[in-house]
Amino acid sequence: MAKIAILGFGTVGSGVYEVLCRNAASVSRRAGEPVEVKYILDPKDFTGNPVEPLVVKNIDVILQDPEIRVVVETIGGTRFAYPYVKACLESGRSVCTSNKEMVATYGAELLALAKEHDCAFLFEASVGGGTPIITPMHQCLAANVITEVEGIVNGTTNFMLTKMVREGLDFEDALHIAQELGYAETKDPSDDVDGRDACRKIAILSSMVCGHQIYPQNIPTRGIRAITAADVASAEKLGCVIKLIAWMKLGKDGSVAAGVEPCLVPKANQLASVDDVFNAVLVKGDMLGDVVFYGKGAGKLPTASAVVADVVDALKNGAQVHDSLFWQPADPVDGMLTDPAPAAYYVRVAGIAPAVVEAIYGYGKVVDERYEGCAYFVERADERALAEAARKVEAVGGSVKLVLKRLPEEV
Amino acid sequence: MAKIAILGFGTVGSGVYEVLCRNAASVSRRAGEPVEVKYILDPKDFTGNPVEPLVVKNIDVILQDPEIRVVVETIGGTRFAYPYVKACLESGRSVCTSNKEMVATYGAELLALAKEHDCAFLFEASVGGGTPIITPMHQCLAANVITEVEGIVNGTTNFMLTKMVREGLDFEDALHIAQELGYAETKDPSDDVDGRDACRKIAILSSMVCGHQIYPQNIPTRGIRAITAADVASAEKLGCVIKLIAWMKLGKDGSVAAGVEPCLVPKANQLASVDDVFNAVLVKGDMLGDVVFYGKGAGKLPTASAVVADVVDALKNGAQVHDSLFWQPADPVDGMLTDPAPAAYYVRVAGIAPAVVEAIYGYGKVVDERYEGCAYFVERADERALAEAARKVEAVGGSVKLVLKRLPEEV
Repeated sequence: MAKIAILGFGTVGSGVYEVLCRNAASVSRRAGEPVEVKYILDPKDFTGNPVEPLVVKNIDVILQDPEIRVVVETIGGTRFAYPYVKACLESGRSVCTSNKEMVATYGAELLALAKEHDCAFLFEASVGGGTPIITPMHQCLAANVITEVEGIVNGTTNFMLTKMVREGLDFEDALHIAQELGYAETKDPSDDVDGRDACRKIAILSSMVCGHQIYPQNIPTRGIRAITAADVASAEKLGCVIKLIAWMKLGKDGSVAAGVEPCLVPKANQLASVDDVFNAVLVKGDMLGDVVFYGKGAGKLPTASAVVADVVDALKNGAQVHDSLFWQPADPVDGMLTDPAPAAYYVRVAGIAPAVVEAIYGYGKVVDERYEGCAYFVERADERALAEAARKVEAVGGSVKLVLKRLPEEV
Repeated sequence: MAKIAILGFGTVGSGVYEVLCRNAASVSRRAGEPVEVKYILDPKDFTGNPVEPLVVKNIDVILQDPEIRVVVETIGGTRFAYPYVKACLESGRSVCTSNKEMVATYGAELLALAKEHDCAFLFEASVGGGTPIITPMHQCLAANVITEVEGIVNGTTNFMLTKMVREGLDFEDALHIAQELGYAETKDPSDDVDGRDACRKIAILSSMVCGHQIYPQNIPTRGIRAITAADVASAEKLGCVIKLIAWMKLGKDGSVAAGVEPCLVPKANQLASVDDVFNAVLVKGDMLGDVVFYGKGAGKLPTASAVVADVVDALKNGAQVHDSLFWQPADPVDGMLTDPAPAAYYVRVAGIAPAVVEAIYGYGKVVDERYEGCAYFVERADERALAEAARKVEAVGGSVKLVLKRLPEEV
């Protein structure tokens, strides 16, 4: 009988408890022994709840119980989660977490702690919710150099953009629906809509690929607030849909570029048909070519089932799993991990005439001119050229409202 | 330094050697030590080839060398592969293979041997080529009951059907192109086009899901020979494409159904857009919902990279990995693993008038009547009703040329 503890009994934490109860037989078969939750750490009151006898208020109860071999962390954030997880790893307990913020910020340190104390630090649920992404990507890494990762990793914004495409809604209306359905936070949806959640996830995947910590603050991140129904319609004219893409590229010289930004995705591209709350991550390996992992991103039970899979892995393989995901500590770099490669771009410029926009951006075409200004498609430009063009636009009294890179067609 | 041997230096075997050379640095980092090929077992002559000094003609050389920890089997078939692999496992060497025929036929026995001798028997490359499917599916299985698997697992037939859809070709022309491009065997393409290759793959996935051996001979298997350009056009009228689908379902009572058959796939279904030589496997978990693993199926280096990933796994985790994929021996069942659930069907009937077809099949509509007979879409029927209808068709002098189940729209 393996005993575990759950830190934080919110949506995911209570989901872990539910999965362990409902699929006790198959979990036990896979883990080689039954798995029992002995403690739940949570400040809330659970009077009358069947889990009430398990609830403790002090992490020390868990740290001092030698029966506890694995700890699940589903508190979220870093204020409590980080010191608790550190203490667990230092005491030799394996930790399984869904906490992307903590992994993106302290991953290297926590992985090193786990190695030092001969236990595992696992976080499959931190990217893609229940969809296996971290483990198969690690598997690809065994025999491949991964050169590129490109994904839709935030279900909330993907749901909103799907609504905007299908029903011609504007950002605010799509957000309202997402909030009503519980897909977006009502109080402050900015982690999702401004791309911070996606940024943490691509930071985690980038760290795996590069073998050293890549920090969210070095990844240029833009969300979807500036997207209008008119942009969606213009994208359609260009044979594309708009998706929030999190990406990373590893150069032959070891250089790393990464970003989170809304992009034009040509309809022939495999990511174009990833709709609603689904997530998909495309991985390019030098031996393997392209593979895609696709599934419903978030949700209580899917995410919890990924955490439980990690628990089984930690119980069975202990310290040996952890090596697999190892990346080295590194300092944040100065500046941003931008990509100098040219691409096709969509720009929306306000306040100046289409002819002026055309003169400034060059090779391309006006896609839409329903207001003063226009939506313009530039066939080929790089970040420097775009910055230079933006300065010229401002110099003549206009302003650049939106810039969308177009992804390649293939895939 | 880990020493390994490769049995069979054909396409995949030489690919394994190439991947180990080209990505030696990353393989060594992941495995925790450099990996060196010490022997290659192959009856062919390799005079002048750089691998010549490694070539041996007798398996005993490998079995008697205590330095060899892992053996790669890429001979194919079962005549030599099966006794060699048995001997390796009995001597405590882990075996990594891409040989679907051997795994589908002798999987349970070889897994049990590996367990007994404290080594691993791994076969990621046997399904989906380089695309990780076995490992992430096993990961899903840790916390989920998998209720359904549905996939496109044969790149050759998928390439041919894609050609037939896009270019209106008939079966024979599409086969000819596939042979010219090296996607289909020139001498005898029947393993691919008659569905036997897909059958072995779904037998392997079914065995994993069920926890006991499911045999290819119990899985009803039909290939794509009967598909005509007219069927493809009729499918289009019904908003569908034709794909060769390998599927399995686990009933709540533990009953198993499986099949390989060309199906109508509605365009909204995630599998409809899996084209060319790509493979995709959809897995439904009770906690997780749907996940899809997608990638280029076959190819020398992709497949080899999956074998190398298994080698790394075997070196690092040894016997502990193997448990994960374990399924129990079982005898083949009497009869076939058919599914009694009703579905919508497309039937093509020759030799009798459309009005007679309509009278026999009932609720439905004529889709095409360009010849004596017609293509008919039946809204709801089960296997028994279809068999009964086929008898009636024959009684009035007609014959059923093709039956295609329609997959559901969702996903």
